[in-house]
Amino acid sequence: MNEKKLFAQIKEKRSFLCVGLDVDLKKIPSHLLTESDPIFSFCKEIIDSTSEYAIAYKPNIAFFESYGSMGWKALEKVSSYLSTKYPDIFSIADAKRGDIGNTAFQYAKAFFENLSFDSITVNPYMGRDSVEPFLSYEDKYTILLTLTSNSGANDFQFFGSPNKPLFNRVIEVSKKWENANRLMYVVGANQIDQISKIRDLLPDSFFLVPGIGMQGGDIEKVISNGLTHKCGLIINSSRQIIYADSGREFYKHAKNQAKTVQKVMEKQLIIRGIL
Amino acid sequence: MNEKKLFAQIKEKRSFLCVGLDVDLKKIPSHLLTESDPIFSFCKEIIDSTSEYAIAYKPNIAFFESYGSMGWKALEKVSSYLSTKYPDIFSIADAKRGDIGNTAFQYAKAFFENLSFDSITVNPYMGRDSVEPFLSYEDKYTILLTLTSNSGANDFQFFGSPNKPLFNRVIEVSKKWENANRLMYVVGANQIDQISKIRDLLPDSFFLVPGIGMQGGDIEKVISNGLTHKCGLIINSSRQIIYADSGREFYKHAKNQAKTVQKVMEKQLIIRGIL
Repeated sequence: MNEKKLFAQIKEKRSFLCVGLDVDLKKIPSHLLTESDPIFSFCKEIIDSTSEYAIAYKPNIAFFESYGSMGWKALEKVSSYLSTKYPDIFSIADAKRGDIGNTAFQYAKAFFENLSFDSITVNPYMGRDSVEPFLSYEDKYTILLTLTSNSGANDFQFFGSPNKPLFNRVIEVSKKWENANRLMYVVGANQIDQISKIRDLLPDSFFLVPGIGMQGGDIEKVISNGLTHKCGLIINSSRQIIYADSGREFYKHAKNQAKTVQKVMEKQLIIRGIL
Repeated sequence: MNEKKLFAQIKEKRSFLCVGLDVDLKKIPSHLLTESDPIFSFCKEIIDSTSEYAIAYKPNIAFFESYGSMGWKALEKVSSYLSTKYPDIFSIADAKRGDIGNTAFQYAKAFFENLSFDSITVNPYMGRDSVEPFLSYEDKYTILLTLTSNSGANDFQFFGSPNKPLFNRVIEVSKKWENANRLMYVVGANQIDQISKIRDLLPDSFFLVPGIGMQGGDIEKVISNGLTHKCGLIINSSRQIIYADSGREFYKHAKNQAKTVQKVMEKQLIIRGIL
């Protein structure tokens, strides 16, 4: 996968929607619980029903790990299903890993080789040698936590001076890393005031934007502050889409929710002359 | 597990050595590769042979994940083996997780419920709501990345003013979190100049100290700068112990290496009047 193909997919589907797969067995439709692998079955149904409108899927690794090796097996199936049946769709392992060089190589191997994700979210706290092992993979992307959507973002990400908070420093330093062209950045949808400032620092990078829907971010404001001539945005929605309904026809509701978001995106892509 | 029991174990074994389990199938003795679960077999042999000298074990989760669901299964067996056969030994999931509240709860469930670790390493970048879910578990410890041993530590951890770099801010803020008494801190062995300053800020906390051995940290300097009257240090060694030899009797060499480190620790515990 590369940014050209991603942009082609965006234009084709008239969408930059990422569907987050946060699979909680307590929340999925109960009829799926009798299946041999309910986690995979749920993901497969969600993927198949929303793939017309989604340009990316983002399994949230914590939700798989919380089911132990059974969850990891389901993750392997989801990753394989995505890369085989939907090779043009951008897959994101939302893992937020970060460790010293030789350990980071193991995580890169886990998500890029053993699993076949196109990208992974990575935490910058440990610096260059914790990120470059991921960047060494051609046609794979590393999505760096920059300014997140949660309340705890205020604890450290704004640390420093108002003109140069930590997240600015993360951007500035990361641009000098080897293969920095394979970096994307996580910017929370609720950080409206900051999105345009971050866009100025990173005019050509893709931002993965969590936090619309349940987390309260305003999608139109995000678009007006962050969109570039090559889109530059991947906006994620998880719970609002995947848990739209818990009946037998949950996948139809998920599809409708995805379509609703896609329509908002399509309109903006047209207004801005991208379509 | 709690700090009282940990200190009792330290006094009993006259040691504060943690053995890191970074299992790489390319490095373990080749005769183990024919076993049904070489990863677990290797860990079991290392644990059994070094348990006389080790007060903690630290599986490095990346090395398990890089083998996919097979690796996760081995991790389940290692965790279960430790908690069943060695319940007094402190087990550390070196996972460096960190995500928004509802996701952090899933990671806590993964490592504290599905697996039965006594503690986990966590990344502070996303702030309070990414850490407190781990802290909500009684008798479990959350070991916060503070000042790490890798070269990339210089990228962001010293960001801010020389008197108040980011890692100081992490300490200061984290002390106010709910159940902050369940926090421990990662402080790299090579950060000699900083260890005593960090100790001043955290007089009673345990530090997990990686970076001796292969990474070049000086154990005696770490001890003289960081030891408290209740020890307060868990010093990790991974590769130097577990890969001391690759022959059939590798476990004897691991044991000898562990014993060598334990002797250094014992001497210091006596000098400082803890034993």
